[in-house]
Amino acid sequence: MTVQDLHIWQQKASEAHALRDASLAKVDPPLEGIPAPDQLPKNSLDLVSKVLTAREIEITEKYGVTELLQVLRERKISVEEVTRAFLRRAALAQVTINCLTELLWDQAISRAKHLDSLPAPEGVLFGLPISVKEHLGMVGDNVTTSASFAAWVGKPHGSNVLLDSLWAEGCVFIARTTQPQGIMHLETESNVYGRTVHPLDRDRSPGGSSGGESALLGMRGSILGIGGDIGGSIRLPSSNVGVYGFKPSIKRISNAGVRGLYGGRETITGTPGPMTVSRAGLDLVMRVALAHKPWRLDPAISLRPWTPYKFTSPPKVAVQWWDGVVMPHPPMTRALKEVAEACKKAGMEVVDWDCEGLDHQKAWEITAACYWPDGGKELFDLLEETGEPSLPLTKFIINEQKSVKDHTMEQLMKLNSDRDSYRAMYAKAWSATATPTSREVDIILCPPSFGAAPLHEQSRYWGYTSQWNILDYPGAVFPVTQVDPALDRKDEAYQPKNETDRFVWDMYDAEKMKGLPVNLQVIGRRGEEEKVLAALEEIEKAMGRD
Amino acid sequence: MTVQDLHIWQQKASEAHALRDASLAKVDPPLEGIPAPDQLPKNSLDLVSKVLTAREIEITEKYGVTELLQVLRERKISVEEVTRAFLRRAALAQVTINCLTELLWDQAISRAKHLDSLPAPEGVLFGLPISVKEHLGMVGDNVTTSASFAAWVGKPHGSNVLLDSLWAEGCVFIARTTQPQGIMHLETESNVYGRTVHPLDRDRSPGGSSGGESALLGMRGSILGIGGDIGGSIRLPSSNVGVYGFKPSIKRISNAGVRGLYGGRETITGTPGPMTVSRAGLDLVMRVALAHKPWRLDPAISLRPWTPYKFTSPPKVAVQWWDGVVMPHPPMTRALKEVAEACKKAGMEVVDWDCEGLDHQKAWEITAACYWPDGGKELFDLLEETGEPSLPLTKFIINEQKSVKDHTMEQLMKLNSDRDSYRAMYAKAWSATATPTSREVDIILCPPSFGAAPLHEQSRYWGYTSQWNILDYPGAVFPVTQVDPALDRKDEAYQPKNETDRFVWDMYDAEKMKGLPVNLQVIGRRGEEEKVLAALEEIEKAMGRD
Repeated sequence: MTVQDLHIWQQKASEAHALRDASLAKVDPPLEGIPAPDQLPKNSLDLVSKVLTAREIEITEKYGVTELLQVLRERKISVEEVTRAFLRRAALAQVTINCLTELLWDQAISRAKHLDSLPAPEGVLFGLPISVKEHLGMVGDNVTTSASFAAWVGKPHGSNVLLDSLWAEGCVFIARTTQPQGIMHLETESNVYGRTVHPLDRDRSPGGSSGGESALLGMRGSILGIGGDIGGSIRLPSSNVGVYGFKPSIKRISNAGVRGLYGGRETITGTPGPMTVSRAGLDLVMRVALAHKPWRLDPAISLRPWTPYKFTSPPKVAVQWWDGVVMPHPPMTRALKEVAEACKKAGMEVVDWDCEGLDHQKAWEITAACYWPDGGKELFDLLEETGEPSLPLTKFIINEQKSVKDHTMEQLMKLNSDRDSYRAMYAKAWSATATPTSREVDIILCPPSFGAAPLHEQSRYWGYTSQWNILDYPGAVFPVTQVDPALDRKDEAYQPKNETDRFVWDMYDAEKMKGLPVNLQVIGRRGEEEKVLAALEEIEKAMGRD
Repeated sequence: MTVQDLHIWQQKASEAHALRDASLAKVDPPLEGIPAPDQLPKNSLDLVSKVLTAREIEITEKYGVTELLQVLRERKISVEEVTRAFLRRAALAQVTINCLTELLWDQAISRAKHLDSLPAPEGVLFGLPISVKEHLGMVGDNVTTSASFAAWVGKPHGSNVLLDSLWAEGCVFIARTTQPQGIMHLETESNVYGRTVHPLDRDRSPGGSSGGESALLGMRGSILGIGGDIGGSIRLPSSNVGVYGFKPSIKRISNAGVRGLYGGRETITGTPGPMTVSRAGLDLVMRVALAHKPWRLDPAISLRPWTPYKFTSPPKVAVQWWDGVVMPHPPMTRALKEVAEACKKAGMEVVDWDCEGLDHQKAWEITAACYWPDGGKELFDLLEETGEPSLPLTKFIINEQKSVKDHTMEQLMKLNSDRDSYRAMYAKAWSATATPTSREVDIILCPPSFGAAPLHEQSRYWGYTSQWNILDYPGAVFPVTQVDPALDRKDEAYQPKNETDRFVWDMYDAEKMKGLPVNLQVIGRRGEEEKVLAALEEIEKAMGRD
């Protein structure tokens, strides 16, 4: 087949591959010991010790974000050595799990050399390697951004407000990562970049839409990255690989400079946010982002400086055992029990968050309509430009959602009003948790998903994360445990409540999911970002962590 | 003509008049000495001394908001006596300038008696009479709200978040005030309530859409009221009658519980705000509103407590001499000169705000489109329900604006994007006012209108206020001077720049406008409500006021 025989979208994808492959070809020394593509192990981490040096493994595995920053600030290891180690590990991630759109070899090393040349370390992120979801754009010349659409391959792009703030604080951008078609799957597959797979099991998904990030973090090719979340796209992939992720309320971190469809859509909005191996990385990104006063550049952003919250008495925790629509898999329920128990032992009041009267199913129908106020026309038109096919999970999130349609103005305003009424109802329910003898609930502890990482193309229930997007409540996910067939036996007698519940329940297989990470999610009221992170700290302390 | 011969809208208007008239009939003792309708004086204030008692005049004229609150708190005058005085004066306002939809005689006196019966004063608004634009709804049973649409006359309504906060602090609601058709004129005329006229000159407009409020304040039938502003509807009427008015950025004061069309519209949003004879009233309302944490009830509201701002060095002021579209009338320009001079003398740095590169005309076209994303269909449909005719200023703001049309989803998102780009451009221009030797501008000092109160149906240029709605910048207006034919001579040589400019320039007649109030406007960056009010205080101090 010659180039002339390819569809336009395939030619565009080839261009994107060429850029990515050229960036990988810079790796020096080149990676050795990589098996042929069809010989890759199920668990890509098995290759780490075969391909990377002991020193590279030490640098990329020994430190959390705070510790690595300290080592860098004290100049115990040069920025360049750290950068090279992460670059080579990110390259290994790419060849095994397909998570990058571009390795920033030259730029990162040049930046590292510059930082090393400074008379003293500068910036709170001095020397920290950071990976970034591709559609966020990037500082630098000749940057292009496709958002994984064939039509946009090669499209010039600038930087964005958030990345500029990180850059100003001395970080090193090391890689740009994959996202799915439309950036609207909870997995990561596109016609341009193919499928990103889970580091621990290539038959499973690292989640999405920030799945290039999560996969890379799961491989420790990065320890801090930036994703985006409009339905779970930070929290779900972070959970699938067992790292931390945080979705603030919208209008705190700027979206300015992000490539995507549906600019000007106000029914629902996404937000960038951090994904990281360290809890401290969540607060760090928020603090840096808001220290730079993004509201002065981006008129969408609320004028609210980052104001760390400190609990003066133990938080009051409500546990959402299920969302009234889909029952979580057994490991998720066990994780909730374990953490709730630890919270109680630490003196927290723990109550139930009963969703059954709160109609999360209705929330989902509103949410899906809000995603595609034009019925998906803008997306399908863009695909058509290059003949790019619509992928199964794209069809799922548009065509298979009964509330999705092209709206008239009247219907749009009705949709917004329904959304606002739902939000007001939920806020009232939260306020009503206060009793004469106990204050209102501080946070909800809930699953970030129905279960651990599913097989590919099975991420067809968004409710555990999207619920908090339509409400605009901040949410942090954190690693809790792993699937353990001995502890997490399937209740074969469970009678699913509906078709989706059955689909999800049937997916669970303890043996095949053994060892996969299980995260939980901490949700706060709208705008209470600082409280969510403070509560997460209290909960982890209750779990015996630092 | 019998009731059967009336159009439906006329029958509905009669119902509204009956409610209003019945409420006026409660006035005790009844007003005496009112001339026949066709004998009313040009200046309605001329009747005050003929109709009200000396004591009533003293109570309603002697005190500003702070002083009246102090007298009430110290119980030097009973709440009931204060309430009765304002009720009778408000009734006089109604019969002369037609500014009320309902006098709250029974409710107010009952509330006053209750407050007087308390062992000690309670609430920061203890006993303060407050008037409210009708579409805001009201605490109490059997409340109806029409928003001046015939179709909605008699429609049951509840209270709203803002009014509940004021009520909780001990105020007395005394009257509900008129608004124009669609609440979208900068004057105040509706088919339901007719035309509200200016207290000083019945041939002129008190402005709108909160023109019932401004007219009542101009008559001192109230000293503090609540209006709403989406294009100037608080600031323009406050300016026309020479009182204070404040439009915060949206998402600070709740709109929840306001009757109106276009619920669920997000292109542009209005906000309630204070109108008052005292500068202190502006801060007071904001403080009370935010002390009650409206964000817990209304999910649209930003979590930003009221945080008074204090200048540690004199504010840097930029003077907008004109907006690049329409030249202000001579008294407005003189007011700007006088205040700018006073600011300089007080040690402030005063620079020019040059709008010519900032394309306020483009902003207006975006704004008009944002008001009517459906081309006005929702409004016209409502009129059609009762056969209610569209008024000239309704036609002006919908049919005569070339950017107004029914939008497809694609067009809507484009409109929102254009709006957001314009906002980003303006924010950048503001940031660029910082120089190596001087900080950025703190506030813009500008006209709130092209000039003093115009003759009826002439308010056809919104740019001096609506500019700050589309940008979502907070704005306060304050009284500066009056039209003085000796000082404010028309430049007959002025060559208007465009058709609108000519229309506006031709309107100026110093002799006929003699003595009419002239206000100015203080504008801050988005979200900087507290700074605007602090700057207003500094400016008034520079003018030799308290």
